[in-house]
Amino acid sequence: MVKEVEGPEHGEFSARDYHDPPPAPLIDAEELTQWSFYRALIAEFIATVIFLYIGVTTVIGYKSQIDHSDPCNGVGLLGVAWAFGGMIFVLVYCTAGISGGHINPAVTFGLFLARKVSLIRAVMYLMAQCLGAICGVGLAKGFQKSYYVRYGGGANEVAPGYSNGVALAAEIVGTFVLVYTVFSATDPKRSARDSHVPVLAPLPIGFAVFVVHLASIPIDGTGINPARSFGAAVIYNNDKAWDDHWIFWVGPFIGAAIAAFYHQYILRAGAIKALGSFRSNPRN
Amino acid sequence: MVKEVEGPEHGEFSARDYHDPPPAPLIDAEELTQWSFYRALIAEFIATVIFLYIGVTTVIGYKSQIDHSDPCNGVGLLGVAWAFGGMIFVLVYCTAGISGGHINPAVTFGLFLARKVSLIRAVMYLMAQCLGAICGVGLAKGFQKSYYVRYGGGANEVAPGYSNGVALAAEIVGTFVLVYTVFSATDPKRSARDSHVPVLAPLPIGFAVFVVHLASIPIDGTGINPARSFGAAVIYNNDKAWDDHWIFWVGPFIGAAIAAFYHQYILRAGAIKALGSFRSNPRN
Amino acid sequence: MVKEVEGPEHGEFSARDYHDPPPAPLIDAEELTQWSFYRALIAEFIATVIFLYIGVTTVIGYKSQIDHSDPCNGVGLLGVAWAFGGMIFVLVYCTAGISGGHINPAVTFGLFLARKVSLIRAVMYLMAQCLGAICGVGLAKGFQKSYYVRYGGGANEVAPGYSNGVALAAEIVGTFVLVYTVFSATDPKRSARDSHVPVLAPLPIGFAVFVVHLASIPIDGTGINPARSFGAAVIYNNDKAWDDHWIFWVGPFIGAAIAAFYHQYILRAGAIKALGSFRSNPRN
Amino acid sequence: MVKEVEGPEHGEFSARDYHDPPPAPLIDAEELTQWSFYRALIAEFIATVIFLYIGVTTVIGYKSQIDHSDPCNGVGLLGVAWAFGGMIFVLVYCTAGISGGHINPAVTFGLFLARKVSLIRAVMYLMAQCLGAICGVGLAKGFQKSYYVRYGGGANEVAPGYSNGVALAAEIVGTFVLVYTVFSATDPKRSARDSHVPVLAPLPIGFAVFVVHLASIPIDGTGINPARSFGAAVIYNNDKAWDDHWIFWVGPFIGAAIAAFYHQYILRAGAIKALGSFRSNPRN
Repeated sequence: MVKEVEGPEHGEFSARDYHDPPPAPLIDAEELTQWSFYRALIAEFIATVIFLYIGVTTVIGYKSQIDHSDPCNGVGLLGVAWAFGGMIFVLVYCTAGISGGHINPAVTFGLFLARKVSLIRAVMYLMAQCLGAICGVGLAKGFQKSYYVRYGGGANEVAPGYSNGVALAAEIVGTFVLVYTVFSATDPKRSARDSHVPVLAPLPIGFAVFVVHLASIPIDGTGINPARSFGAAVIYNNDKAWDDHWIFWVGPFIGAAIAAFYHQYILRAGAIKALGSFRSNPRN
Repeated sequence: MVKEVEGPEHGEFSARDYHDPPPAPLIDAEELTQWSFYRALIAEFIATVIFLYIGVTTVIGYKSQIDHSDPCNGVGLLGVAWAFGGMIFVLVYCTAGISGGHINPAVTFGLFLARKVSLIRAVMYLMAQCLGAICGVGLAKGFQKSYYVRYGGGANEVAPGYSNGVALAAEIVGTFVLVYTVFSATDPKRSARDSHVPVLAPLPIGFAVFVVHLASIPIDGTGINPARSFGAAVIYNNDKAWDDHWIFWVGPFIGAAIAAFYHQYILRAGAIKALGSFRSNPRN
Repeated sequence: MVKEVEGPEHGEFSARDYHDPPPAPLIDAEELTQWSFYRALIAEFIATVIFLYIGVTTVIGYKSQIDHSDPCNGVGLLGVAWAFGGMIFVLVYCTAGISGGHINPAVTFGLFLARKVSLIRAVMYLMAQCLGAICGVGLAKGFQKSYYVRYGGGANEVAPGYSNGVALAAEIVGTFVLVYTVFSATDPKRSARDSHVPVLAPLPIGFAVFVVHLASIPIDGTGINPARSFGAAVIYNNDKAWDDHWIFWVGPFIGAAIAAFYHQYILRAGAIKALGSFRSNPRN
Repeated sequence: MVKEVEGPEHGEFSARDYHDPPPAPLIDAEELTQWSFYRALIAEFIATVIFLYIGVTTVIGYKSQIDHSDPCNGVGLLGVAWAFGGMIFVLVYCTAGISGGHINPAVTFGLFLARKVSLIRAVMYLMAQCLGAICGVGLAKGFQKSYYVRYGGGANEVAPGYSNGVALAAEIVGTFVLVYTVFSATDPKRSARDSHVPVLAPLPIGFAVFVVHLASIPIDGTGINPARSFGAAVIYNNDKAWDDHWIFWVGPFIGAAIAAFYHQYILRAGAIKALGSFRSNPRN
């Protein structure tokens, strides 16, 4: 039904049923004068505090229970994966209308590359997220003092038996899955066509975090969120955690960049303009 | 697209696409003459009976199974967290249209602070919830007599190794997460803009309860609902449970108050009126 | 916004934004001449086959794994609860538009009491469901011959340590939760007002089945569906299962009747007509 | 409300509120000239890479953990079932608007039989899916070299104690459940009538994969996706896996064919045209 015409030479923009916002400017000075910008920073900060507090408290509580009582007690690694994934679902739902619901520097970086947010917003979000993560892990440590240090502080480290290269690759693929889902959920072109896209959006994002944790907890504890890894590294402050720390920035940023490229140049059919050889007529 | 103008001096209310209901009066005498008010009380009562019956029966059944047979039997603490979170999802879905779906005095308190419900409604809901919780735990005890007492009665107590202060803080943060989610799900301003808000609403509320249980079951069994803690304390009637009981009222009420403040004065941009220094122009 | 006026004396039916279908006749002869009626019977039959096959295969497979290998293998009782609840979610989603998605004689009985289906349809559905359940358990037995008998055949029995009265009460409360959720999900009055009701409907129904399993698996394996219990009893054909079998018909039917009464006379405000003393003015 | 008239002799097509697309041609040469066709192939390829990488990494990681540390560590078989089912939910959500979100040759085959996709598209999708599966399992092996071979390579094999016939039957029934759900989710007739159908669509598809895994992991590890089985067989390259491999093509294709037949000739009431003896008047 939807007739979609790409390229300005046709002059038939009225046939489109979606609105593609213009690219965000690199520096948007006006943004800084608006209360909504600072409110978004506060929302990102609070959401990251909650995310890290719930996630790290679940990890430490689980490890202390299987140690103290019988080995099958506790919520299990499955419960740990649910804590991270379920919390992201809830927080994206709560903050999507305020800040866009990033709660993750890799997501912010991917959306910046796709020109969805300005440079200044991206940098400020990243700082709010890192600060929030430090506070969230700090809360978790404050609540479980002796256990916190004994059970690894919720920090991301490469597990014995895995190389740094494997952990880096796992972070790249895992973050690709997450950021690809974020792009799919927020694409205005798809929203117009598929009624389930805007409705469900936060749920598949949460599930993406959940399933990536199922796969890569044994490898490196699963980062795919530099703020999460950074907050835990700062509070735990352990040599091994700091040595491996670069993996949890480089991996997620590469994965997010690939997802942004994949979405913008392959799925959004941006490639067609470069190639200029196919007639665009996507399935509706 | 949505041009949002805050403050009455502009006189441009027609630009708004949402309807902000007026603050509920403290005492609404007319409310008491309506059948819908008593129906809402009955719905809150029945929902709390079901919530406590399912939750406490799951806790006791799980503990009796890991004791009687092999240690890995039973639904696990993960199953316990699902029982509480999943039940809240179902019950909020069922009662949202009848009573607003509080099923929790802390939620009622938060919505009262935000002037969403009248004082008289808040007090009556709280009484219906507490009575329902007592009946629900009573049912659970009636069904599992000897097991009920032997396995701790589903009561909330501070676990060994944790201080009262930590349990109080965990209740504050946990209830903040829940009530913040409730506010996000029921905000008329966001509902107008984000189509997924009214559609999904009960699901993130249930997930918030679920993930908070994952994090704080090892600390104090997780209250974040004074009626839940009160019902179990009344039926279990154990000294330790009563000694710790204040934590499960004070913590949730403080957490709900912070969430109400955060939502009304930060996220709803109420602060701008006090500061009067930024021009409101939120992202759409 | 919605002004709702109950009682015919006002003559203002145009103010209603929902359509209440007339009560189904007890005997609807025309129904029998329609292909859609037989198609609905086939859909109920096939859905019950799938439901019992997946559910019982999961139970038997889980029990064989924890016996053969280490005690923590298998999907756990949590996985069993997910198999029943998740399958109901999927099947209600798939058959709702064809047959109404009952897949359970207790649901059919509750909807019959509320005059949503005719007597003839209710009886035929019940027969299709029972026949489907026998075939589904038969499939499960055929696939796991020796294991099936050794591990209890997926039949519902009262567990040691619980009386028949407790199991009966657990079935009543459990089925009340399920049928109450079904009524909430399909109420045309609420659908008009709460946009999330028709959209989410199958999900809370599935979650209701899931959480009731979490609570009552230790008590009697959880019936809340007479066809499920009947199919397993026929194929397993064990004295204990047959002796307890009445519980899994009487309990669910009482629970469904209470849910129908609760929904029709309390929540739907039918009581007002009998009492005639309150002015109806529900919250919107 | 919806008056539905089947059969061209009535000439009342205007009464329909849905649009039934014409059957896809067997060979659609024009398709091959469109960028959107190649974009769909890329999306199927990438989605299958991700699906297999996450699924197989979860299987291997889980098995290595229960072996190395205590037997209760790891995400459990329940976590494995979630990894496959949750990933399908996310990937169908992400790719539905690009390629239709098949990610499974059995789904493609079922939709081809129902004339929803052309032969050329079906064959090309199948190749993209198989290639993607090989790459995905290759990634998983590359990340977990020694573990991969030691813990069975995530390949589908008939478990000891089960015959080939049982595994074949389990694949048929399991794939029937999945493809029946896909047909229910994408039926334009139902979409028009049930507002929850297009909105939730990816979620029940994911849950169908999840519950089928719960039931049949003990039997054969669960295929219901020939590309998944093929990718693992190629990379693992084990005699037993290759000997059993035909089961994981024949079973899913038979199950998909039965689901296509059931949906087109029973549920879509196509049978009426053959029988010509009932008046169509479905429930609305």
